[in-house]
Amino acid sequence: MHVYGEHYRTIWMKEDNPNVVQIIDQRHLPHKFVVENLVTVDDVSAAIKDMHVRGAGLIGATAGFGMYIAALNAPADSFMESLAADGEKLKATRPTAVNLAWAVERQLDAVGAVTGDVHTKIQTARETAQAIADEDADFCRRIGEHGLAIIKKISQRKNGAPVNILTHCNAGWLAFVDYGSATAPMYAAHDKGIKIHVWVDETRPRNQGARLTAWELGQHGVPHTLIADNVGGHLMQHGLVDLVITGSDRTTYTGDVGNKIGTYLKALAAYDNGVPFYTALPSSTFDWMMRDGIKEMPIEQRDSTEVKYIRGKVNGEIKQVLLTPKDSPAANYAFDVTPSRLVTGLITERGICEASEEGVLGLYPEKRKKDVNNDQ
Amino acid sequence: MHVYGEHYRTIWMKEDNPNVVQIIDQRHLPHKFVVENLVTVDDVSAAIKDMHVRGAGLIGATAGFGMYIAALNAPADSFMESLAADGEKLKATRPTAVNLAWAVERQLDAVGAVTGDVHTKIQTARETAQAIADEDADFCRRIGEHGLAIIKKISQRKNGAPVNILTHCNAGWLAFVDYGSATAPMYAAHDKGIKIHVWVDETRPRNQGARLTAWELGQHGVPHTLIADNVGGHLMQHGLVDLVITGSDRTTYTGDVGNKIGTYLKALAAYDNGVPFYTALPSSTFDWMMRDGIKEMPIEQRDSTEVKYIRGKVNGEIKQVLLTPKDSPAANYAFDVTPSRLVTGLITERGICEASEEGVLGLYPEKRKKDVNNDQ
Repeated sequence: MHVYGEHYRTIWMKEDNPNVVQIIDQRHLPHKFVVENLVTVDDVSAAIKDMHVRGAGLIGATAGFGMYIAALNAPADSFMESLAADGEKLKATRPTAVNLAWAVERQLDAVGAVTGDVHTKIQTARETAQAIADEDADFCRRIGEHGLAIIKKISQRKNGAPVNILTHCNAGWLAFVDYGSATAPMYAAHDKGIKIHVWVDETRPRNQGARLTAWELGQHGVPHTLIADNVGGHLMQHGLVDLVITGSDRTTYTGDVGNKIGTYLKALAAYDNGVPFYTALPSSTFDWMMRDGIKEMPIEQRDSTEVKYIRGKVNGEIKQVLLTPKDSPAANYAFDVTPSRLVTGLITERGICEASEEGVLGLYPEKRKKDVNNDQ
Repeated sequence: MHVYGEHYRTIWMKEDNPNVVQIIDQRHLPHKFVVENLVTVDDVSAAIKDMHVRGAGLIGATAGFGMYIAALNAPADSFMESLAADGEKLKATRPTAVNLAWAVERQLDAVGAVTGDVHTKIQTARETAQAIADEDADFCRRIGEHGLAIIKKISQRKNGAPVNILTHCNAGWLAFVDYGSATAPMYAAHDKGIKIHVWVDETRPRNQGARLTAWELGQHGVPHTLIADNVGGHLMQHGLVDLVITGSDRTTYTGDVGNKIGTYLKALAAYDNGVPFYTALPSSTFDWMMRDGIKEMPIEQRDSTEVKYIRGKVNGEIKQVLLTPKDSPAANYAFDVTPSRLVTGLITERGICEASEEGVLGLYPEKRKKDVNNDQ
C-alpha cells in the first residue's frame, strides 16, 4: 500500500543489500514513520517481542525472514543446529502466536530438505521467507477481491454514493504483509474508483484504530473518519453505516468470531439495525477444533496500565500520561467473541461463506473429515 | 458523599462566611481536589461556562446560588433590574441547560414576590438557593432508595455475594448536589452494607467515567474497576454483570433514553444477555413533548479535538497529547438514544416504572392531560 505516495509492504529485503531485512517500526506510528534494519536474529527477536511488528500475518512473515537471517549468520559446521536454536529463540518471543511457530517450522523443513551446500541452504531460506510473505500478501489480495463484490453491490444500490464502512481495531495491511484482511476489500474498492468512506473505531485501550488504521487509510488516500468506540451504534441507528468489516484473531469452524474487545458490541448494533456484518480472515485464523467460541475461547487479560495510561504527542515528544485516579483498579480484557448468529458472513481467501459449520466446511471441505472435532 | 473521609456536597455556602459560595472545581479531577470560592456573578458565570461544574442538577444549583450572589451584590436602588440582568448573564453561559434557566426564573419569582427591604430579599435569595440545592439532593436520595430495592433483591439471590453493577459516564454525585442519579442506588446499597462492585466505563472521548465516576466511587470507598467502553459486552456474556444503571440527559415520556454516547451499545448487550438495564433520573429530565427519541432527539456534535487529543498527568503536570494522525478527521457525537424496548425500567424520585408511556404517566399522572403531545 502507499506511504507518502510510495509503495510499501510491511517487511522486505533491502533493495541494494538482500542481507538486510527492513520493517516499519510500528511503535512510532502515527507520529513518525520509521524504517528499521534487521541484521541479526536478536534484532528480529526484539522486533517481534517489543511489537515493532504485530498482527498474525506480519509476525509469521517476520519469523520467516528471521530464519533467513539466522541462516545468513549460521556457522557452516553446525548450520542446522544453529538454525534450530535460533528458531527456538524466535518462537519464544510471542509463544501464543500460531503463525510464528508455523513459519519457523516451515523454514526448518525447507532448509533441512536441501542436500546442497550452505550457499544453497541460505538461498532456500531466502526463497522460503519471500514465499511466506508473498503468500500472506496474496491471501489478503484475494480476500480483497471477494469482499469487493459486497461493496460493489452496495455502491450500485446507492447509485455510486459513498459506501460507509465501519471497522474496529487494525486488521489493516500493517497487520499483514500487504492489503490487510478487513481493509483489503476497502483498498480494492478504492483502487477501482468505487467511492467509500470508512468509520474508524479508535479501539481502546491500545488505540490501534486511532494510531494505525487511520494512519494507513490516510496514507493510501482512503476517505475516513475517526470515532470513539461508543459511536457506532448511533451511526447505525441513523443509516450512516452500510457495512461493517472486522478482522479476527481466531474464528471457530462454527463461525464464532474472536476479535479485539468491543467487536461484539458493534455486531449487536449491526444486527439491531439490519446492517451487514462481515469478518475477513485468511483461513490460517480458523480454529478447526473449537465448537463454541464464547465458552471455549481463552480471553487474554492484559496489564491494567494500558487502560490507565496512554501515549501521545506533545511539543514534538511522545509522552505517557495518566488518565485516571492513580489508585483506581482497571481490568483489561483484550478480546471478545461475537456469536455466529450476529455475523452475516466470513470473507476468506477462497470466497465468502456463511458464519456456520455448514458454510465454513463448504469452503474448506478437506477439513470435514479428519481435523474437525465434530459431535455427530 | 465522602472526599478524603469528609462529607461534601458539590456546592455549599462557606461555613464561616455565607457570602462566599464554594464548589469543587471538577476540571482538576481526578488528579487534584480543588475547592473554589465564588464571590461575584462573573465567578459563577465562568464556573458554569468553563465547566468547573457540570451535570444538570449541579448546573441548576449553581445558577440558584449565582442569583443569591447577584442579590448580595445588587445596588439597593435598582435591585430587581440588576438581578434580572445577572440572570440573563447566567442563562447565557450554557443556553441549552434547562435547569439553569429554571433556577434563574425561580429565584426572580421568589425574590420578586418579597415586599420587604433589600435585606429580606437577600435572605429570600439565600433560602431559595439552598432550597434548590436541597431539593436536588433529596430527589437523588429518593432515587437511591427506590433503586436500592433492585440491588437488595439481586444481593439476596446471590446470597450476599457482591452485586456487579455496570455504569456509563458520570451520573454521579459530582453531576448533582449529592448522591447522583445512577450512583444513588449504589451509594445507598454500599452505605447499608450490601456488597457491590461497580464496572466503570471510561466513557470516551471525554472520559467522565475514568476521571469522575472512578474518583467519586473510590473516595466513598465503593469497590469498582475501570474498563474501556469496549469491555461491557464481554463481561455480560460471562455473567460478570448483574445490573446496568445509567443516568439520562433527556428521556421521552415514552421511555426512550437519551444519554452519553455508547449507552445504546450497553443496552443492546444487556438485552442480549438478559441483564436488567435501568436508567435513573429525576423527573426534570423527562421531555413531556417528545414521542420518538431516535427520530426527534437532537444529538450534539462536539469538536473533533476531543477525540484526537486527551489530557492526562505526566511528571506532576497536566498535559494534552495528540493520539491520532494529525490530519485524520474525527467525528464527535456526544449522545445516543436507547429505545425503550431495551430499557428494563426507569428509577425516578417517585419510584420505578416501566420505560413506556403507560409506565411514565402512571407515575406522573398530572402530565397525562395537559402537557403530553399525545397522538390519540
